[in-house]
Amino acid sequence: MGGDRGPAEVIAGALEASGEGIDVVLYGPPKLDTQGLELVAANEVIEMHEKPADAVRSKPDSSLVAACRAVGAHEADAVVSGGNTGAMLAAGLLRIRRLPGVLRPAIAVVVPARSRPSVLIDSGANADARPEHLVQFAHMGSVFAEEILEVLNPEVRLLSIGEEPEKGNQLTLETYGLLAASGLNFAGNTEARDLLRGAADVVVTDGFTGNIALKLLEGTIGELLAELREEIRSTARGKLGGLLIRPAARRLRTRLDPDTYGGAYLLGLRGLAVVAHGNSSSRAIANAIRLAARGVEHRVVERLGERLPDRVASARS
Amino acid sequence: MGGDRGPAEVIAGALEASGEGIDVVLYGPPKLDTQGLELVAANEVIEMHEKPADAVRSKPDSSLVAACRAVGAHEADAVVSGGNTGAMLAAGLLRIRRLPGVLRPAIAVVVPARSRPSVLIDSGANADARPEHLVQFAHMGSVFAEEILEVLNPEVRLLSIGEEPEKGNQLTLETYGLLAASGLNFAGNTEARDLLRGAADVVVTDGFTGNIALKLLEGTIGELLAELREEIRSTARGKLGGLLIRPAARRLRTRLDPDTYGGAYLLGLRGLAVVAHGNSSSRAIANAIRLAARGVEHRVVERLGERLPDRVASARS
Repeated sequence: MGGDRGPAEVIAGALEASGEGIDVVLYGPPKLDTQGLELVAANEVIEMHEKPADAVRSKPDSSLVAACRAVGAHEADAVVSGGNTGAMLAAGLLRIRRLPGVLRPAIAVVVPARSRPSVLIDSGANADARPEHLVQFAHMGSVFAEEILEVLNPEVRLLSIGEEPEKGNQLTLETYGLLAASGLNFAGNTEARDLLRGAADVVVTDGFTGNIALKLLEGTIGELLAELREEIRSTARGKLGGLLIRPAARRLRTRLDPDTYGGAYLLGLRGLAVVAHGNSSSRAIANAIRLAARGVEHRVVERLGERLPDRVASARS
Repeated sequence: MGGDRGPAEVIAGALEASGEGIDVVLYGPPKLDTQGLELVAANEVIEMHEKPADAVRSKPDSSLVAACRAVGAHEADAVVSGGNTGAMLAAGLLRIRRLPGVLRPAIAVVVPARSRPSVLIDSGANADARPEHLVQFAHMGSVFAEEILEVLNPEVRLLSIGEEPEKGNQLTLETYGLLAASGLNFAGNTEARDLLRGAADVVVTDGFTGNIALKLLEGTIGELLAELREEIRSTARGKLGGLLIRPAARRLRTRLDPDTYGGAYLLGLRGLAVVAHGNSSSRAIANAIRLAARGVEHRVVERLGERLPDRVASARS
C-alpha cells in the first residue's frame, strides 16, 4: 500500500520482478487484485503524513509492519516499500531490530556518478545525527561498497562545505577527527559539487543533509533536461538537432534516472529492507525488488553482521 | 588578492566593470599592475586556508580587511571579494559591523530557477545556526526579494526533507513554528528537488545546508551538461545534432551559469559586501561588481536598516 501512485503500480512492478523468478509476496488489503501473486492480508495502512513511531505501534496489522515482521521472523528474506520512510525505519527497528553494535540504521543510496558509483550514506534515515553515528555510517557504507560494488579498500569522504578539515559545521568538524582515526580509507572532506562527478566510493553525511543532497540531485537533473528540451524545441533548427541527439539524451537519462536503481538499502538491521521512492513507477518498484534480491544473494546483512561489530568496536576504542 | 585564478583575472573583471562607469578601487600589493585602475596598497594577503577570525585580527593590512575598513569608514560604498568567505564575514563583522538587531549576517544567493528567481539564504555564512537566526534570514531574504527582485509580498519557504511540518531535523522543526508566527508570507517547507524549478521567492536554510545545496546545484548542472556533450559526441549522428542544438544549449548554460550572477550579497551589515566565487572568471568578477553597484543604487543596506529592526523586534515579541 506504499507508493504515491497506488497499489496497481506496485503490483505491476512486483509482477515484472516475479517474472524473473524472484518470489514476491504482497502485503495489503484482503480484496486487492494481485493478478495471481501471493497476498498476505493486512488490514491497516500507514499514511505518508503519520508520525512514524506512533503509526507503527498503533497499526501492527498495517502492510508495512506486517511485511517487516515477516523479515524479522525469517518468513521473508527482504522487505521493499515505497511508503513512509520514517515508518519503514520505525517498523524495521521494532520488528527486524538492529544488528549488534549498530546505534542507528542508515539509508545507503548508490549515486550514479560519472567516474564511479558512490554510496551516499545516510540519505535520510536520521535527520539529526551525532559524530559517532556518522562514523558507523562510514563503516556500513564501506562494507556495502566492498561487498556489493566490489570496490577494494573503498575511499571514504565526508560531505562538507570545503575540502579543508577546518571547514564545516560542528557535526562535520567533530566527525572529521573520528574518521581520520577510524582505520577506514578516509580521504578527507568532499564538496557537494563533486557528488555527481564521483567524489568517493562512500560519501558520508547526516540524514538531513544526505536527503537534501539526493533530492536536489534528482530534481536538478530532471529540471535541467526539461529546460534543455524546452530551449531546443523553441526553434526549428533546435527541433531537428533534438531528434538527432535523442538517443544520446536517452542513454544519459537512463543512466541517471533514479528509477534505474529504484530503491536504497536501509542498513544496520538484522534483515534486509529496501526503501523505494514514494512516487515510484512500476519499473522503479521492479528495480527495488531486484535490488533486494541482489542484496539477499550477496548476503549483505550477514556480511555486515560479520564485519561490522569488529569495526564498530575498534572505532570506539 | 582574492580569487583562485590570481589578481590578473580580478583586474580584468574590474576593468570591464569600470568601463561602464562604476568607480572601482583595487586593494592589493603596491607593485600590482592595475592597468590604470586606482590602487590602495595593502601589504598582506589572507589565504583560503586561514582561520577567518584569527587571520582578520592578525592581518589588519590585508587587502580584504582594508577594503572592508573602507566601507566601514564610508570611503567606499561596497566591497567585493572572491577570497576566503569566512574571512570576509569576519572582516565585515569587525570593520563594517552588523545592522542594529541583526544576530548574524547571512549570504543571499539568487538561484536562477525556472518559474522565478529564488533567494537562497543562508548560502554559507553560518555553518551552525539556531532557529531565531533562520527567522532573521527569512526577514532579510524577504526584504531583498521585495527591493531587488521587486516581488510584492514574497513567498517564503523553509528548506527541509518533506513538505509536511513534522518532517525535518530539530532545527527546521523549531524554525517552522517561528516562521509561521513571524508575519512573513510563510508557505511551509519546500523540498530540495524543487529548488531549480522555483520553490519560492525566498528559500530559508542554515549556512551549511545552503552551501551544500548551492554547490550541488552548480556542480550538477556543470557535470550534467558535460556528460550530455560527451554522449552526443560519441556518434556521428549525435555530433550533427549537437551542432544544431548548440545555440539552445548556450542559452540555457548562460542562464544557469553562476558567473551570470557573479556574486552574492552578505546581508545584515551596515555596508554592502558581495562575496564572489573563489574560482571566479573575469566575467564573474565584473558581474559581482555590477551586483554591488546595483545594490548601492537600490540602497539595499539602507532599506534593510529601515525595515529590519521592526521586523526583527516583532519576530521576538
